[in-house]
Amino acid sequence: MGDSNDYKYLTKIDYPADLRRLKVEELPAVCEELRHDIIEELAMNPGHLASSLGVVELTVALHYVFNTPFDRLVWDVGHQAYGHKILTGRRDRFCTNRKLNGLKPFPHPDESEYDTFCCGHASNSISAALGMAVAAKLKGEDRKVVAVIGDGAMSGGLAFEGINNAASTPNDMLIVLNDNDMSIDRSVGGMRKYLLQLMTNTTYNNIRYRISRKLFDWGILNEKRRKGLIRFNNSVKSVLTRQKNMFEGMDIRYFGPAEGNDVVELVRILNVIKDMKGPKLLHIHTTKGYGYAPAEEDATIWHAPGKFDPDTGERIKADDGKQHPPKFQDVFGQTLLELAQQNPKIVGVTPAMPTGCSMNIMMNAMPDRVFDVGIAEGHAVTFSGGMAKDGLMPFCNIYSSFMQRAYDNIIHDAATMRLDMVLCLDRAGIVGEDGSTHHGAFDMAFLRPIPNLTIASPMDEPELRRLMYTAQLPGRGVFVIRYPRGRGSVVDWRCPLEEVPVGKGRKMKDGEGVAVLSIGPIGVDAEKAIAIAELESLNTNPMAPLDIAHYDMRFLKPLDEELLHEVGKKFRKVVTVEDGVISGGLGSAVLEFMADHGYQVEVKRIGMPDHFVMHGTVAELHRECGMDVESIAKVLV
Amino acid sequence: MGDSNDYKYLTKIDYPADLRRLKVEELPAVCEELRHDIIEELAMNPGHLASSLGVVELTVALHYVFNTPFDRLVWDVGHQAYGHKILTGRRDRFCTNRKLNGLKPFPHPDESEYDTFCCGHASNSISAALGMAVAAKLKGEDRKVVAVIGDGAMSGGLAFEGINNAASTPNDMLIVLNDNDMSIDRSVGGMRKYLLQLMTNTTYNNIRYRISRKLFDWGILNEKRRKGLIRFNNSVKSVLTRQKNMFEGMDIRYFGPAEGNDVVELVRILNVIKDMKGPKLLHIHTTKGYGYAPAEEDATIWHAPGKFDPDTGERIKADDGKQHPPKFQDVFGQTLLELAQQNPKIVGVTPAMPTGCSMNIMMNAMPDRVFDVGIAEGHAVTFSGGMAKDGLMPFCNIYSSFMQRAYDNIIHDAATMRLDMVLCLDRAGIVGEDGSTHHGAFDMAFLRPIPNLTIASPMDEPELRRLMYTAQLPGRGVFVIRYPRGRGSVVDWRCPLEEVPVGKGRKMKDGEGVAVLSIGPIGVDAEKAIAIAELESLNTNPMAPLDIAHYDMRFLKPLDEELLHEVGKKFRKVVTVEDGVISGGLGSAVLEFMADHGYQVEVKRIGMPDHFVMHGTVAELHRECGMDVESIAKVLV
Repeated sequence: MGDSNDYKYLTKIDYPADLRRLKVEELPAVCEELRHDIIEELAMNPGHLASSLGVVELTVALHYVFNTPFDRLVWDVGHQAYGHKILTGRRDRFCTNRKLNGLKPFPHPDESEYDTFCCGHASNSISAALGMAVAAKLKGEDRKVVAVIGDGAMSGGLAFEGINNAASTPNDMLIVLNDNDMSIDRSVGGMRKYLLQLMTNTTYNNIRYRISRKLFDWGILNEKRRKGLIRFNNSVKSVLTRQKNMFEGMDIRYFGPAEGNDVVELVRILNVIKDMKGPKLLHIHTTKGYGYAPAEEDATIWHAPGKFDPDTGERIKADDGKQHPPKFQDVFGQTLLELAQQNPKIVGVTPAMPTGCSMNIMMNAMPDRVFDVGIAEGHAVTFSGGMAKDGLMPFCNIYSSFMQRAYDNIIHDAATMRLDMVLCLDRAGIVGEDGSTHHGAFDMAFLRPIPNLTIASPMDEPELRRLMYTAQLPGRGVFVIRYPRGRGSVVDWRCPLEEVPVGKGRKMKDGEGVAVLSIGPIGVDAEKAIAIAELESLNTNPMAPLDIAHYDMRFLKPLDEELLHEVGKKFRKVVTVEDGVISGGLGSAVLEFMADHGYQVEVKRIGMPDHFVMHGTVAELHRECGMDVESIAKVLV
Repeated sequence: MGDSNDYKYLTKIDYPADLRRLKVEELPAVCEELRHDIIEELAMNPGHLASSLGVVELTVALHYVFNTPFDRLVWDVGHQAYGHKILTGRRDRFCTNRKLNGLKPFPHPDESEYDTFCCGHASNSISAALGMAVAAKLKGEDRKVVAVIGDGAMSGGLAFEGINNAASTPNDMLIVLNDNDMSIDRSVGGMRKYLLQLMTNTTYNNIRYRISRKLFDWGILNEKRRKGLIRFNNSVKSVLTRQKNMFEGMDIRYFGPAEGNDVVELVRILNVIKDMKGPKLLHIHTTKGYGYAPAEEDATIWHAPGKFDPDTGERIKADDGKQHPPKFQDVFGQTLLELAQQNPKIVGVTPAMPTGCSMNIMMNAMPDRVFDVGIAEGHAVTFSGGMAKDGLMPFCNIYSSFMQRAYDNIIHDAATMRLDMVLCLDRAGIVGEDGSTHHGAFDMAFLRPIPNLTIASPMDEPELRRLMYTAQLPGRGVFVIRYPRGRGSVVDWRCPLEEVPVGKGRKMKDGEGVAVLSIGPIGVDAEKAIAIAELESLNTNPMAPLDIAHYDMRFLKPLDEELLHEVGKKFRKVVTVEDGVISGGLGSAVLEFMADHGYQVEVKRIGMPDHFVMHGTVAELHRECGMDVESIAKVLV
């Protein structure tokens, strides 16, 4: 590939206003340069490639036709917004994308006035854009509002709620439905079928075309109306069938399907429809990874490929020759398959994340027993509840921060009935580069108050296996297991599948005076911190060195009361360590226990602070939050 | 109306098996008796009338055609399930409905094997039923599964997620879409329009009829196929238009619309379609309140009418001649209108609860500035976020237990951006007869960990007004105000609208040794408890009577640190009192503060325990939870 200094256009486009000075015929070249720039940058600085490539033409067309930032452009899931960032004043800083103190991983109003809304989680764009469209109307401001939503995000209930409301609230919003038949994995569900039909219904399209010709011949359509051809097509359809498609039936004007990787065509269509009154939906087809052959061929792998050689498309894997502990997600995926082979009641449920949580391992082996329900976290939990009610044993795996979408479902459709089911929260705790919207910060705090739940977190891979085994034994109720993104600490992780006593922690190390209570893999850091603190105290105070006890709580709920009584009686100082917000989590639970039982113990809590933690590597963020080994050690002495 | 002993059928129907022994011609009489019984019972023992009346025929038809409880019947929102309860072994106990230790307000598996799932919150039936249908298939059990969902609940995103997934997951489920064009208030949204069109598209229906006649004439249809007439109609439609309705487009067979208050017709249709393979949807039209003229005329008032005279339809209002304090919801409604008259940026947002939260007051006065978005809590918050982002000041009012549906929206679409908007949580704390699914138990615990939120709860009506005034001042960020169901304590509530200092509590009474920290209206009970405890101690220990301080915290977040430092320094014992779960709420916040600042204070926490609190009057449940005046007083001494 060429050098980025060769760009004819891109170096002169600092803001969309510069773009809008170009002729429409020049836009394909802009797209080519923009695509090239994204590929070059991401080859070195890993991020979300395929989705951003797919919408290069759309991004250019939208900023060309609409008067951003006065007109509002609301992205749905910011993965795809790299082109948007480069065109909106952030080209120079794009190399800092997703890095500590660098550009945010997803558009956010704090970063740019072109970023109209926070878009880390899927399916919120229509609702947010509708709010902006209504605000414009009420304030008498003549601005356009555009939401760009993928077909994957359309399976989310929030998107439907937004469309449903957009249909009955006065507004002039445009929804661009970017249909690439993909989430991270392939799209699923009825809406996908429905869109596919709209796309491929050639018979219908032929009839439409022939009738429109006839209407021309008969003089019912005239030249003046030719301009509104797309709109007209819909009228023809109505005339023909008295039947409307779903969107039209809701009084949302439907346009398309159109080729979304043709920037000139997009500009033409957007110019036709942008001033039309009332809510409207433009259905476009794009190819995820468009214009980069390796990414087009396997968009799932190239969703976030890591580093790669831009010329060959070879992905560069860091191989230091050492054996590493496995990723927690892979231990989950492998163990789930093992368990499912033994227990025919086990089924898997994932909301559009089979690859991300490694449930694809079981899916490949037992396709009938794994359900990818699409981006639909609430449904994933309630659907699991229905299966549990009738005797299956679902393992429903949802990233911690996305589980926030299923909060009521956990309470109402699982906990109230004490159903036997397992909720696995992957990506719990600090996740790193995906930043503030993706940290699994709140789950322990929001789950702990729910009655009837068992909440556990394994310190390492073998513990994850044991907890999974325990969770699927009969009569265990709603069993939550949280574990983080990334690798654990045990290379030789294939331990036997054995039962763990529910509500029982482990004494990892005895001690006196000070006790550390940890939950989850951060307990390994706590272990190291204890060693450091003890070593330091041996140097500074060799006559009475620190002897710090360590308990792996393992269960947030039910609490190990026996263990805590021991701690309350024996220690003067307790330090709690957790990879989650400290308001309401393990530390609070320990404080509540000590207060309820009259123990006068000094309790120090280590965990995520009460502000949104930004992006960076996990190590950087742990340090920032005072959760790294060094910081923990300082609290111990 | 007649005496219930006159029933020819009802007294002989203990279970659906008894019903199924009758001839189909006898079912209209059964329906008449069932309707009569519901009206008679509810006249004395208030409950949800209109929705249960509307589905009498459907209830009888479903239990007649399907082999319940082996076949699974999943209701969506249990309001409508009174007929179901009476026919499934609970006729004798129906007089205990919603009372302490009596029948539950909504179907629940703990109560009856005919109750297949918890159904207090709307829109979960399709997801749960799909789970059961999949379980049946995987386990090789030949059972039918039926979900009954209202058009109101269809606007909820969860219902859409369920339909979307049902379309692509192998199952033989039947969805009965009970379309009465109502939630508690009238239905809204695009789906409503869409269903209305399906219902009223007479031209299309005529064409369909004429073509079907022709196909008969031509011999394309024969007698054998006549049985599948409804199904056939859909084929005709496909032949005619190559266009499918939304459900058909998702590969869900669509049948209807059918008259849902005709039990014989319903039985006929259900028999035709019940054995068909694949997912299917039967769209029926019913009249909310059907068969009882007053309820048919105003289904909103008769949703839950209280006591009434069954013969005259006169609602019996308890009037003791005294002036009562207003309901909190009415103070909200009146104050919102006052504020909106002063501040043109204020808009109101409610998810299908304009009457329930009294936002109808502003809605009537300023219809353009109030948005009923349908049952769609997540959208309500994100939509409010979009409006706030573009300069409006939304007051989004959602019942506390329903706000569980919008948890991620609060975090992602409001808090991350520190938008200026107000979230009002009505029905916070124990709500009484609606029971476990409706108590606003968790909000303080689940909101407190979210950064950037302000969380307040007024002790009385004037405080609610002052907090609402404060919340809409510029730059206050996401401002949460929670208040309970029912009346407050101040008859003369129309105080001036004045600013409250954010994060500042109030010292209600000075004291020594013991301090009570309360939040919300339960502080009034705490006041009474303090008076009782002091009086008792004066009797028992006149030389050193108790002198108990009382602080109304007013804000859960930010905490009044100045106040808490004063408390930490001055008192040896602190009692926290809150109307919510004690895990993670105010009590935990106080414990965290005391621990973080090294105060050695004994802290006792009063609030809802860690199990689902059942139904009864608020007073009964407060007593049960140790949250009533007497119980609080006991903790103080």
